Amino acid sequence: MEKISLYEHRVSYYETDQMGIVHHSNYIRWFEDARVDFLEKVGFSYAKMEEIGIMIVVLGASCDYKVSARFGDTIVVIPKISEFNGFKMTVSYRVYNRENGVLLATGETRHCFTDLKLKPVRTKKEYPEVYKIFSDYIGVNLDGEGIYQ
Amino acid sequence: MEKISLYEHRVSYYETDQMGIVHHSNYIRWFEDARVDFLEKVGFSYAKMEEIGIMIVVLGASCDYKVSARFGDTIVVIPKISEFNGFKMTVSYRVYNRENGVLLATGETRHCFTDLKLKPVRTKKEYPEVYKIFSDYIGVNLDGEGIYQ
Amino acid sequence: MEKISLYEHRVSYYETDQMGIVHHSNYIRWFEDARVDFLEKVGFSYAKMEEIGIMIVVLGASCDYKVSARFGDTIVVIPKISEFNGFKMTVSYRVYNRENGVLLATGETRHCFTDLKLKPVRTKKEYPEVYKIFSDYIGVNLDGEGIYQ
Amino acid sequence: MEKISLYEHRVSYYETDQMGIVHHSNYIRWFEDARVDFLEKVGFSYAKMEEIGIMIVVLGASCDYKVSARFGDTIVVIPKISEFNGFKMTVSYRVYNRENGVLLATGETRHCFTDLKLKPVRTKKEYPEVYKIFSDYIGVNLDGEGIYQ
Repeated sequence: MEKISLYEHRVSYYETDQMGIVHHSNYIRWFEDARVDFLEKVGFSYAKMEEIGIMIVVLGASCDYKVSARFGDTIVVIPKISEFNGFKMTVSYRVYNRENGVLLATGETRHCFTDLKLKPVRTKKEYPEVYKIFSDYIGVNLDGEGIYQ
Repeated sequence: MEKISLYEHRVSYYETDQMGIVHHSNYIRWFEDARVDFLEKVGFSYAKMEEIGIMIVVLGASCDYKVSARFGDTIVVIPKISEFNGFKMTVSYRVYNRENGVLLATGETRHCFTDLKLKPVRTKKEYPEVYKIFSDYIGVNLDGEGIYQ
Repeated sequence: MEKISLYEHRVSYYETDQMGIVHHSNYIRWFEDARVDFLEKVGFSYAKMEEIGIMIVVLGASCDYKVSARFGDTIVVIPKISEFNGFKMTVSYRVYNRENGVLLATGETRHCFTDLKLKPVRTKKEYPEVYKIFSDYIGVNLDGEGIYQ
Repeated sequence: MEKISLYEHRVSYYETDQMGIVHHSNYIRWFEDARVDFLEKVGFSYAKMEEIGIMIVVLGASCDYKVSARFGDTIVVIPKISEFNGFKMTVSYRVYNRENGVLLATGETRHCFTDLKLKPVRTKKEYPEVYKIFSDYIGVNLDGEGIYQ
């Protein structure tokens, strides 16, 4: 199991709103960016998924906002597979300000695995190599150095 | 207590993603649009809020996706104040396809009331007229005709 | 040739940026919304386009910003087909504040007609009924009442 | 005059639309990201601007689309100050696919310099150090190695 680098993002001007902070909807987008980044790093890029005919559908998303990110901040998103049973998966996220290590938000997204026609796929049986990848990362905190607490 | 018209929105092309459906982050934005619309209809527009110096901060947001909205659909968002204690508030939402009445998503957002410096405000004591507005609508299903079940 | 109602949009909170105005990228999105709305009203909805196998690809877009739109404003977008030769089309737009009639922005988008494989389509020959629709509206100012000057 | 690194961006899933390509409005946002990045690298970050009380307002934006960017692509945006007279500025942009060097789009944005009350500022007289920074970069192609042609 390889060590995974954390997902970083520089806050764009267009992500702010008139309160002078990042609009809360963008965190849901950052979760996706961090998830895509993570999937690619473990060898399960979208290209790969399409190739083998698997989709990871979003069933739910939530975010708790603690401290506002602002324009120019570099944020770090740390995803973790908190649940996975071969068919459904929950990914949790922590968002930090990279510079000062302040925890800005936490959240999670819930997913299921389907084929390209949105029919549920049970990876354990049908795609054991996919099953293994996700199983291996259940509960793994990608921040191996414990930089962000 | 006035009857409130429901919030409607026509799905924009730029709200879709390459899966051919509305990107899931947009529902969080629709919740906000519906909330703003509701607040204005009960006499509590942003202009009014700014005038009296109150802000309604977003503490959390979540959405459960059931059926995908698509480009060109008109969706209806029905907000409901599910909790309000004068200081904190939870608003829940149901999103429907207007044409066929199918429930597309449900969700909620959590908020607190603050002054312009983000100091908590207890409306019951400090802004009784604000307190009354929100209290009156606790648990009220805006869909008075029960069109969307 | 039918009279076409103008496209209206209420500015969303998430469309603002930290300067307290609508982020300039959103005007390009409003142009699209107004164009889609117009196409639908003249009987050329996206569903119809897909059915007959035509796409209207975006080749270019531009916007000149005059006065900033703000949260809560209702804006009116008036599209006009300024050029159309059966294969290429230019649509120009004027954006107004509905309440006070102030011109906020002008712009245009350039397009070509293609089949679903992005091969150019010459509508005059291949889709004369499509050609007629667009030809009929060349230079037509949809604001028939001259409300917005 | 320092050598400036190019602005890179990984295309997000939420930037795509149902045509399976990046929605055209996002290029306008990438222009801004690249401009902000450039300004910061030449010592003129937003923080600095705010400190000295200068704003760079967007007067116009345009983009010509050549080849579509897609999800997962890494794009490179190369800004160039094509015009600057101390008060008005035009920045032009080229967007490339990093992997294959294909030119995806070109565009420009037009700006003026103002104080925080949006009153025009003539930098040559009032802020000579600002004037110098921008003057030095007029016409400079940041791609010093000529990687992207």
